Amino acid sequence: MHVFNGPNLNLLGRREPAVYGHDTLADLEARCRAVTDDLGLQMCFRQSNSEGELISWVHECGESVAAGDSLGLVLNAGAYTHTSIALRDAVRGAEVPTVEVHLSNPHARETFRHHSYLSGVALGVVAGFGALGYDLAIRGLQRTKEQ
Amino acid sequence: MHVFNGPNLNLLGRREPAVYGHDTLADLEARCRAVTDDLGLQMCFRQSNSEGELISWVHECGESVAAGDSLGLVLNAGAYTHTSIALRDAVRGAEVPTVEVHLSNPHARETFRHHSYLSGVALGVVAGFGALGYDLAIRGLQRTKEQ
Amino acid sequence: MHVFNGPNLNLLGRREPAVYGHDTLADLEARCRAVTDDLGLQMCFRQSNSEGELISWVHECGESVAAGDSLGLVLNAGAYTHTSIALRDAVRGAEVPTVEVHLSNPHARETFRHHSYLSGVALGVVAGFGALGYDLAIRGLQRTKEQ
Amino acid sequence: MHVFNGPNLNLLGRREPAVYGHDTLADLEARCRAVTDDLGLQMCFRQSNSEGELISWVHECGESVAAGDSLGLVLNAGAYTHTSIALRDAVRGAEVPTVEVHLSNPHARETFRHHSYLSGVALGVVAGFGALGYDLAIRGLQRTKEQ
Amino acid sequence: MHVFNGPNLNLLGRREPAVYGHDTLADLEARCRAVTDDLGLQMCFRQSNSEGELISWVHECGESVAAGDSLGLVLNAGAYTHTSIALRDAVRGAEVPTVEVHLSNPHARETFRHHSYLSGVALGVVAGFGALGYDLAIRGLQRTKEQ
Amino acid sequence: MHVFNGPNLNLLGRREPAVYGHDTLADLEARCRAVTDDLGLQMCFRQSNSEGELISWVHECGESVAAGDSLGLVLNAGAYTHTSIALRDAVRGAEVPTVEVHLSNPHARETFRHHSYLSGVALGVVAGFGALGYDLAIRGLQRTKEQ
Amino acid sequence: MHVFNGPNLNLLGRREPAVYGHDTLADLEARCRAVTDDLGLQMCFRQSNSEGELISWVHECGESVAAGDSLGLVLNAGAYTHTSIALRDAVRGAEVPTVEVHLSNPHARETFRHHSYLSGVALGVVAGFGALGYDLAIRGLQRTKEQ
Amino acid sequence: MHVFNGPNLNLLGRREPAVYGHDTLADLEARCRAVTDDLGLQMCFRQSNSEGELISWVHECGESVAAGDSLGLVLNAGAYTHTSIALRDAVRGAEVPTVEVHLSNPHARETFRHHSYLSGVALGVVAGFGALGYDLAIRGLQRTKEQ
Amino acid sequence: MHVFNGPNLNLLGRREPAVYGHDTLADLEARCRAVTDDLGLQMCFRQSNSEGELISWVHECGESVAAGDSLGLVLNAGAYTHTSIALRDAVRGAEVPTVEVHLSNPHARETFRHHSYLSGVALGVVAGFGALGYDLAIRGLQRTKEQ
Amino acid sequence: MHVFNGPNLNLLGRREPAVYGHDTLADLEARCRAVTDDLGLQMCFRQSNSEGELISWVHECGESVAAGDSLGLVLNAGAYTHTSIALRDAVRGAEVPTVEVHLSNPHARETFRHHSYLSGVALGVVAGFGALGYDLAIRGLQRTKEQ
Amino acid sequence: MHVFNGPNLNLLGRREPAVYGHDTLADLEARCRAVTDDLGLQMCFRQSNSEGELISWVHECGESVAAGDSLGLVLNAGAYTHTSIALRDAVRGAEVPTVEVHLSNPHARETFRHHSYLSGVALGVVAGFGALGYDLAIRGLQRTKEQ
Amino acid sequence: MHVFNGPNLNLLGRREPAVYGHDTLADLEARCRAVTDDLGLQMCFRQSNSEGELISWVHECGESVAAGDSLGLVLNAGAYTHTSIALRDAVRGAEVPTVEVHLSNPHARETFRHHSYLSGVALGVVAGFGALGYDLAIRGLQRTKEQ
Repeated sequence: MHVFNGPNLNLLGRREPAVYGHDTLADLEARCRAVTDDLGLQMCFRQSNSEGELISWVHECGESVAAGDSLGLVLNAGAYTHTSIALRDAVRGAEVPTVEVHLSNPHARETFRHHSYLSGVALGVVAGFGALGYDLAIRGLQRTKEQ
Repeated sequence: MHVFNGPNLNLLGRREPAVYGHDTLADLEARCRAVTDDLGLQMCFRQSNSEGELISWVHECGESVAAGDSLGLVLNAGAYTHTSIALRDAVRGAEVPTVEVHLSNPHARETFRHHSYLSGVALGVVAGFGALGYDLAIRGLQRTKEQ
Repeated sequence: MHVFNGPNLNLLGRREPAVYGHDTLADLEARCRAVTDDLGLQMCFRQSNSEGELISWVHECGESVAAGDSLGLVLNAGAYTHTSIALRDAVRGAEVPTVEVHLSNPHARETFRHHSYLSGVALGVVAGFGALGYDLAIRGLQRTKEQ
Repeated sequence: MHVFNGPNLNLLGRREPAVYGHDTLADLEARCRAVTDDLGLQMCFRQSNSEGELISWVHECGESVAAGDSLGLVLNAGAYTHTSIALRDAVRGAEVPTVEVHLSNPHARETFRHHSYLSGVALGVVAGFGALGYDLAIRGLQRTKEQ
Repeated sequence: MHVFNGPNLNLLGRREPAVYGHDTLADLEARCRAVTDDLGLQMCFRQSNSEGELISWVHECGESVAAGDSLGLVLNAGAYTHTSIALRDAVRGAEVPTVEVHLSNPHARETFRHHSYLSGVALGVVAGFGALGYDLAIRGLQRTKEQ
Repeated sequence: MHVFNGPNLNLLGRREPAVYGHDTLADLEARCRAVTDDLGLQMCFRQSNSEGELISWVHECGESVAAGDSLGLVLNAGAYTHTSIALRDAVRGAEVPTVEVHLSNPHARETFRHHSYLSGVALGVVAGFGALGYDLAIRGLQRTKEQ
Repeated sequence: MHVFNGPNLNLLGRREPAVYGHDTLADLEARCRAVTDDLGLQMCFRQSNSEGELISWVHECGESVAAGDSLGLVLNAGAYTHTSIALRDAVRGAEVPTVEVHLSNPHARETFRHHSYLSGVALGVVAGFGALGYDLAIRGLQRTKEQ
Repeated sequence: MHVFNGPNLNLLGRREPAVYGHDTLADLEARCRAVTDDLGLQMCFRQSNSEGELISWVHECGESVAAGDSLGLVLNAGAYTHTSIALRDAVRGAEVPTVEVHLSNPHARETFRHHSYLSGVALGVVAGFGALGYDLAIRGLQRTKEQ
Repeated sequence: MHVFNGPNLNLLGRREPAVYGHDTLADLEARCRAVTDDLGLQMCFRQSNSEGELISWVHECGESVAAGDSLGLVLNAGAYTHTSIALRDAVRGAEVPTVEVHLSNPHARETFRHHSYLSGVALGVVAGFGALGYDLAIRGLQRTKEQ
Repeated sequence: MHVFNGPNLNLLGRREPAVYGHDTLADLEARCRAVTDDLGLQMCFRQSNSEGELISWVHECGESVAAGDSLGLVLNAGAYTHTSIALRDAVRGAEVPTVEVHLSNPHARETFRHHSYLSGVALGVVAGFGALGYDLAIRGLQRTKEQ
Repeated sequence: MHVFNGPNLNLLGRREPAVYGHDTLADLEARCRAVTDDLGLQMCFRQSNSEGELISWVHECGESVAAGDSLGLVLNAGAYTHTSIALRDAVRGAEVPTVEVHLSNPHARETFRHHSYLSGVALGVVAGFGALGYDLAIRGLQRTKEQ
Repeated sequence: MHVFNGPNLNLLGRREPAVYGHDTLADLEARCRAVTDDLGLQMCFRQSNSEGELISWVHECGESVAAGDSLGLVLNAGAYTHTSIALRDAVRGAEVPTVEVHLSNPHARETFRHHSYLSGVALGVVAGFGALGYDLAIRGLQRTKEQ
């Protein structure tokens, strides 16, 4: 199982806590690892502010999936969700089963956050549950792929 | 816990199985009940084709929540998701913690399904996981409200 | 004189009091009845969450008007104001002199509340005065029809 | 053969006769029955102002079609034509061969009547012929299904 | 009775048979002639790829109608339906009672086929019935004009 | 109480009487004065074709309100309703309780009259009642401020 | 005959001569007077930078026309052409036969100059001929009104 | 001097006389010839319903202008005004000084007549004066070119 | 191999040489023939200003392709690229492998040249290379079809 | 150096202090004069609520600049920034080097404040610095013109 | 004080000097350092073509500001101004007082440069002053933060 | 000669082979090298998923072109074609003669791939020919620059 986080998510816990909560990215990783441990899965958890790096990681994840080493990707692409066709192409091109996740509910924020380039190629979407959403996304992906 | 289903969801299992799967609404209810039983919760599961009836049910749910008898609502409003401001107002007005759920991923379908009037007032959104999404939504709502 | 109220107005007094005030629907009815009593008019005061029911009531009101038993309709269609062409058609088709009324000022709220399908067929519009607006609407309709 | 009529069509003969003609809904039903009698078909003719009820009737019609008891549906959805995605989903979900019919020509009226959610899932469209359009629609549906 | 066909309809039977069926333009003409013979009407059946020629033919048809020699026009303007204001002006200017006909349902195709410049000036529209649509259109026009 | 009238309202009684009625601006002033006399209020009634002058008058009105000499403003801004952000800013900046009034119903006229820059900052809106609307607006404002 | 000029036309001869030519406003007035003298007409020629003043002048012109003292108005409203609904209302409300004139061709300039609020209520439009356009407009108006 | 007329202008005098007047195309030609005779100019007056033919004529006109045999073109392109980029390209490519003329005022008609592809490349525009507009256009073009 | 040229391309060498270069259409044909001779292919090279004629030629080309006498079409549709759905339908309907070619780069020109109805049905697009683009297009089509 | 202030800026210090601060217009003038004194420049500081007056002042400023008596204009046009093409034309037509200044940041406010007609003709823009912005604008203009 | 420059600003002095002037990035840095030296401030001056790197630098700057080591950021984000929501989020999330600066005036260039994602979260904006703008921005930021 | 490839093109041969074919990026490089060898040119062939890296490479290419070491750039920017103004600025700013190339035809895919920020600054465009397009683009660029 891969969990990738996009731009500014390294600020977690510091950035707009009223919107994103007080947990840091390390707290979030620990929480996710508890879930993957519980499910008996390996987890690769990463964050990048670079669109290009995220794309390359999605390619690596695709190879991992093809090799049977990963069930797929939980992806919180942050603001790239709304602007990156290249990331969308990476998900589709690398054939990675992907769950799009957002900490907050983008539809309750500015209009330019209402459109997602990822939703159209994602297996599923989970939004608005804060850190709990990663838990739901991981479990949802695991159960979908192992059914 | 309340679980409400909107228009045409009574067709489940018959309607476009390539999109919605082979489970019937009764199968879906059973699946949800297994989850709420597991969580030790009561569940009220309903379906209606009528926008007005759904609104009235949301009001009832709001009273139930206020009385401490329900944690909130898992709502698959079907096509009313995209057209009903009245349902949005019901959710906000009755102060019902609501998780919006969709069996399929609306963003992978026609453009007129890309906008949701509910997302802006929902606590969270779960889409694309089929029947499993109800499970995730129920658990997500329960853990959010009981934290 | 008919006074019809659309979806969620049964929540009045409970729903977002900062926006809609503390009066309940019963308080509002009492207030309206004081006005119609003062004017020596009968009043039929109703609320429904159902678009179809509101349409049928408008038809009934049209018959009442044709029979000389009612001066017309004060209509707060709630969210259906913004989405229902069918309700617009009912008002025009049944030839009911109608005053559109809103408790709050829709133009001070979300963009999707700025358009009204009713305004184009209404005799007049009164918005933003809270419960007082019903009083003004009833008197305005009465004086327009009896001039 | 099913013939369903949407909101405000019960006003026929009274409502805007310059647009809709002087025939009542009963006249229209008689005219349709003459055609179905001529074709040796049963006919179920109904009208409702409720979107939800129309949806449920489309479901029933779908069962009737599946059972070989009906050739399909002639549907004049009135204003719901322009606003109801749920009705569109009902037609597609219940797999009902449907001919969309309009008494007047919606394209010669207000802009908001130029778009139809039904056309995309209808077998065919007949508009502008007044009551005669039902005759053409019934015959067109019968000949298409029995070819 | 005039029946005019616009651009590319000479390809009929060869062009995208999945969309337009296997009948050639000659088959279609024969089918129409059977209907007009049945109704005791003369028929002038033509096809052109030229917008200007179609406009001139509509003018001729207008003279024929004025002279009482034709009941009007069944017009399948093909792609000019969506782009030609000049053809619209011809229909209105020459005062030709016109039924717009389409073999397939334009609303089930690309977005740029959803708008018709002709619908606003047409007496009626028939779409989606394949060759049968011409039959319905001819009969509809005949019965409308001879009522 | 202040009552301000915008561009072209000096033409009242002469301009498009089918739309605006036969009363002149002097008749309208008399009518308003009867109402304010009845309520025991002073009234300042003015008309200007100049956007800048109207803005300055709103400022003066704001000083009057602050001094407790006026309850607020009934404003028929005419066409400036649809084009003047500066007038909107004046109403908000000078903190004048303002009721927007229109003789006719702007939504039954051209599209460019459907948007109002004032509605978003107005206490209330009254439209479509002709001269009677001023009466309702004055009473509505008085009762709102004196409650 | 009235000839009114809007904002910035007092700059003529100085302002962007590549666009507007080297004649001053006084030259333009002289040129117009030569034409009206030739036609045996009085001419009132004015310029204002104020929207409100232009509106009031249009009202005066309307009185002059009603009294038979003027044939109508040649109006170069400058930038108010594109922004002033109030000026449009003045032309229509005061019932002034008006020819809209522009020195340059607005359609060969920025997009925001392509729309005119005046064209819809003008008797005619003359654009792109420089000062000669006033000559054509005056003669066109004179011949239209005296036919 | 060339004067070209586009689609449906051969209907003049018959087509919508309330909009276009009672003069026929022959009357219009005679009127234009009187003007060009008065100015001592040759005139070539033509009408076509074909976009391609109009384009070829504009090319011929361009050669005539280059040879000093014509001052330019008065062009009433009818509905092609609103749809033909090719005609625009012909005017610019053949370097023909062109005055765009319209009998009626397109801005007082349907929205789709408000945009002109020709205005951006025309020397000038004259609209709304009926047949008189051709007179003004010819004189305007002659005086512009001979200055 | 067919090479068709649309409206105004007969002006080549004369029309806006800064945009289109100094070669005439005859020069262009010679250049293309040198390429097809080099490739051992027959070439049919034509130009028309008529949309209808271009459509008919595409049909002929389709027959030639079906008969194995041509590899397909290099099409510079000029301004019809942006306005003709009928030409698009001809290319698809006649099943002609088509390369869209433009001398200049439409995206560096006016906005209304940015959309092409042909690109969606073309095998490929070559733009901006001037006359050389025809060479590339012919070779590209030949190598694609003969691979 | 000229400093002009548009509509409602006379309310400074009173109007929405959370947005505009507590300084009055007189305070602002004093602050600007300190800067121009420091730079050894004359300053003309004015405010008007009238679009026409502002235009005329810009013309005067242009004469002053041409005479070498002023370096240019610091212009806070208030709401006219967003609606006045005429003011834009004045700046360009009078050839006044202009710095657009705003106290607050318009992009952090309502959408209709995001577009400026002035920015396209301004030498520079300074926004969001409150009264300090005038200081920066004056110094920026001085150094740009005297470089 | 931090000064960050976005994509292509390393080309300064070479790239389109008519738009951006002849100073190189090193010249610009020297100029900025002269200002910060004058103000007794440290300055960190950087340029990157990478969106991700700019985001990370904004985070670092945020830490510096929090530690009291920097007053904030002068940011010329180049083309990312118009496309990067992620950079906007970085500015807001890292709580960096930011002045947006542009060498040229984006509103005098292509339409797609008229919108800025940064303006909504920036403390202020300075545009159009060339290199001098950095000077103004630094001083503006310093005086705002030290007031 | 430089050939740069954007995001996800390293997936070539694996990613959606129905759209992009079976050749890998190495195959494509070999194919391009055969062409440049044939033309006696050096080639620098690269791929990056990073927008910033592509921009920097374009700058390097610009230096190479200025030094006479390269004829220019063949650029397949993948999804950055549709989203990157920064890349457009790099091409223009570094003055690199650039041919935009796409393997598939973007106009036959999703709407958000129909717009290219590069086309407006590219020397030419080649799309839809698969790997052959690189061959055509290289030859087209070579012949354009060496003419």
